[in-house]
Amino acid sequence: MSINTNTWQTLWTDVNLATMTQGADGYASIENGALAVADGKIAWLGAMADLPSYDANTVKVIDGQGAWLTPGLIDCHTHIVYGGNRANEFEMRLEGKSYEEIANAGGGIVATVTATRAASEAELFASALKRLNTLHQQGVTSIEVKSGYGLDTENEIKMLKVAQQLSQALPVTVQKTFLGAHALPVEYQGRADAYIDLVCHEMMPKIAAQNLADAVDVFCEGIGFNLAQTEKVFAAAKAHNIAVKVHAEQLSNLGGTALAAQYQALSSDHIEFLDEAGVKAMKAANMTAVLLPGAFYFLRETQLPPIDLLRQHGVSMAIATDANPGSSPICSIQLMLNMACTLFRLTPAEALAAVTCHGAKALGLADSKGQLAVGYDADIACWDIQQPAELCYQYGVNPLRQLMQAGNIVI
Amino acid sequence: MSINTNTWQTLWTDVNLATMTQGADGYASIENGALAVADGKIAWLGAMADLPSYDANTVKVIDGQGAWLTPGLIDCHTHIVYGGNRANEFEMRLEGKSYEEIANAGGGIVATVTATRAASEAELFASALKRLNTLHQQGVTSIEVKSGYGLDTENEIKMLKVAQQLSQALPVTVQKTFLGAHALPVEYQGRADAYIDLVCHEMMPKIAAQNLADAVDVFCEGIGFNLAQTEKVFAAAKAHNIAVKVHAEQLSNLGGTALAAQYQALSSDHIEFLDEAGVKAMKAANMTAVLLPGAFYFLRETQLPPIDLLRQHGVSMAIATDANPGSSPICSIQLMLNMACTLFRLTPAEALAAVTCHGAKALGLADSKGQLAVGYDADIACWDIQQPAELCYQYGVNPLRQLMQAGNIVI
Ligand SMILES: [Zn+2]
Ligand SMILES: [Zn+2]
Repeated sequence: MSINTNTWQTLWTDVNLATMTQGADGYASIENGALAVADGKIAWLGAMADLPSYDANTVKVIDGQGAWLTPGLIDCHTHIVYGGNRANEFEMRLEGKSYEEIANAGGGIVATVTATRAASEAELFASALKRLNTLHQQGVTSIEVKSGYGLDTENEIKMLKVAQQLSQALPVTVQKTFLGAHALPVEYQGRADAYIDLVCHEMMPKIAAQNLADAVDVFCEGIGFNLAQTEKVFAAAKAHNIAVKVHAEQLSNLGGTALAAQYQALSSDHIEFLDEAGVKAMKAANMTAVLLPGAFYFLRETQLPPIDLLRQHGVSMAIATDANPGSSPICSIQLMLNMACTLFRLTPAEALAAVTCHGAKALGLADSKGQLAVGYDADIACWDIQQPAELCYQYGVNPLRQLMQAGNIVI
Repeated sequence: MSINTNTWQTLWTDVNLATMTQGADGYASIENGALAVADGKIAWLGAMADLPSYDANTVKVIDGQGAWLTPGLIDCHTHIVYGGNRANEFEMRLEGKSYEEIANAGGGIVATVTATRAASEAELFASALKRLNTLHQQGVTSIEVKSGYGLDTENEIKMLKVAQQLSQALPVTVQKTFLGAHALPVEYQGRADAYIDLVCHEMMPKIAAQNLADAVDVFCEGIGFNLAQTEKVFAAAKAHNIAVKVHAEQLSNLGGTALAAQYQALSSDHIEFLDEAGVKAMKAANMTAVLLPGAFYFLRETQLPPIDLLRQHGVSMAIATDANPGSSPICSIQLMLNMACTLFRLTPAEALAAVTCHGAKALGLADSKGQLAVGYDADIACWDIQQPAELCYQYGVNPLRQLMQAGNIVI
C-alpha cells in the first residue's frame, strides 16, 4: 500500500508511542517511532525505520528526542461547574462539630445548590475555567461535565451552557451530561416523583431542543433516586435519543447498573458495591466501568470496586476525577493515575487505558478519541518520561512537555 | 510606641492574615489587615484601621483585594536529590511479580543508590531543581533536603553540594541534612558497625569541615540502624555541634525517638508506632513530630501516628512531603495539606501550622520563619481564597497568587 504523505502537516519523530489500542495488552507501544498528522487526524504511525519519505518543505517536524506520546488524557466524569465551596463544612467536621451543627451552618449538597443558583453564568464560567485549565495543563484534551447543582429548569440549563462555553474557551472537547436527577431540591422535599416528572417532562425536552446534553445521568442510590425513578429518566432520555449513564452501587447494591444495562448505558460509575450479576450485565451491554478513586480517598471508603470481577469478565475500566465540591474536591487527573494504582491496585497500563481508550468509550467517543491510531483525532500528549509507568508512579512534577489537540500544538 | 515607617519598602493592604503564631489557637488571624516589609523582614502588621501613615512615594503598595496571606510554606522533610526513579519496581509489583523477580530486576533503595552514584552533580541538580520548583510554585519558601543515597563519602558530599546549589538557583531557603545512616550500602553488607564508623569518623568530619550539614539524621528501624548505631551517629554529630533528628517508629517501636530526645533532637519523623512514653520524651525535649502522610498513603499503611497523644501532651506537629523515589514519590506540599486532614484527621488549622510555624521549628528556624510576626523573615504566600481551610479542603487548582521571599516578590 502506498502512503500519501502529501497531506501531512506535522510529523513527530524520534518518539515512543503508547498507542493504547482498545483491547490490546498493556500499552501497545511502538518504540523508536514516528507519527504523522493531517487535517487534525492521525495519518500515519509506525517505527522510524518504516517512515515513508515526505516533503521536508511542507511538513513541520517535531523532534521528540526520545519522549513518549500517549493519547490526550480523558476525564470522563466531572462536576467542575459549581458555585461556592464546602471548606467550611470540611473544617467543622474535622473540628469534631456535630452533624446538627454542620447542617445548621448549611452544609451538604444544599449548600452547593444554593451557591450555584445564586451564581451568574459568568461567575460559574470563571471558576470552572480554572478547574478545566488545571486539568488541561496536565494533558487532558477531552472532558465530561455534568449539570446537577441547579435542580430547576433555569439553573440546570445555565450549568450546561457554562459547560458549552468551556469548550469554546480552551482547546478541550467537552461532553455535556444532564444530571437533573442528582438530588432532590429542597422545594420538592417529600415529592421525589413530582421532581422526576419535572426532570423528564420539562427539563429534558428543553435541554434536548437546545442540544445541551450529550448524555443523561441519574444518581441511583438510597440517598438519591430509586430504580423506578431512575428508569423514568432513562426512558425519557431514550425518547429524546440521548445516551444514558448512571451513578450506581456506590453505597449499596440497588441494581442501578443492571437497569442501566437494559438501556445500553455508556457507563456505570462508582460501583463499589456491584456484584457479579451486575458485572455480567455491564459486559453484555458493552458498558464501561468508571472508577473514581478521588471520591474513594476523600470519603475514606473501605469497600473497593470489584476490580477482579471486572477484569475476569472483560469489562473496560475508566478512571476519572469526579471533581466536585462534596465528595472529591480534587482536580487532578495525574493524581488519579497514582490513586488508581495505589488505592485500587490497577496496573499502570490499566490506569493509562482508563484515562485514554476506556475514558473515550465511556463518553461514546471510542471511534475517534483515546487511541493513537490512523484516522483518530490527533489529540496527543508528549511526556518527558523514560517509560509510561512513570505517569502513574510519581506525582507532583508535571511531565507534560507538549500537548496537541485536533492537530494543533496547544501547550 | 511610635512606629518608624520610613524604613518600609513594601506594604500589603486589604489582606487577611493567617499569622500562624506558634502556640496560638487556630490561625491567629487578622482580617482586614495590612503588613509592611522592611529589609526583608516583617516590620509591621495589624488591622487596616490601625495602619500608621507612611510615605506613599517610597513604599510600594500591593493591593491584596481581600486575599489571604500566610507564612511561606515549609517542607521540613524531603529527599528530593536522587538519581533514576523506581517506576519499574512499582509496575512489577502491581503486575503481581514476586519479590524475587523484583529484587532480581534491581529494585529497592539499592537501585536509587546505584543511580545516584552514577549521576553527575549536574544531572542530580537538574532533576532535583524540577522537584524544588514544583514545591516553590505551590508556595514553599523553605525546604529541608537530605543526603542518604550516596552512602559513601564522595557521593554523600555530592548530594549535599547539590542541595547547596539548589538554594542558589531558586529563592528558597534550603536546610541540608546529612543522612549517611539511611541504609547499609551493599559493600558493607553484614558490617553495619564498620559502616557507622565510616559515617562518624570519615564522612561527618569532612561534611562538617565544608559546612555542608545543618543537621544529621539516622534511619533507626529494624530494617535500618539499631539504637547503639544511632547513638554513635548522634554522639558524633554532637561532637561537631550539629543538630540531630531521626526517622523512627515508622514500622515498629524501637525507641529511636526517646534516644533522640536525649540528644535534644529537632524532630522525630514518621512515628506511627510511637507510644505515650515516647510522646512525653518528645515534649520534654521540645521536639517536633514530623508526620508524613504521603508515605502513609503510598505504602498503604494502616497504623496512624499517635495524633491524640501528641495533642494531649502539646507536642507540635509538622507535616512534610518526604518526597523520595521509594516510599513517597509525591512532590506536592498542597496535597500533603489535604492528606494531613483526610488521612490523619488534622484540622485545617493544625495542618497549616504543620507547614508553617511547626515546620520552621522542626528545622531549628522557629525564631525567623514560619510566622507572620514583626522581625520575622518576610517569606509570605498570598492566596486566592476566602478562608484558610480552602488550602486543605481542595486540591488541584493552585490558589497561590503571589509569593514573597526575604521581602522580594518571587512569584
Ligand atoms: Zn459524580
Ligand atoms: Zn524520609
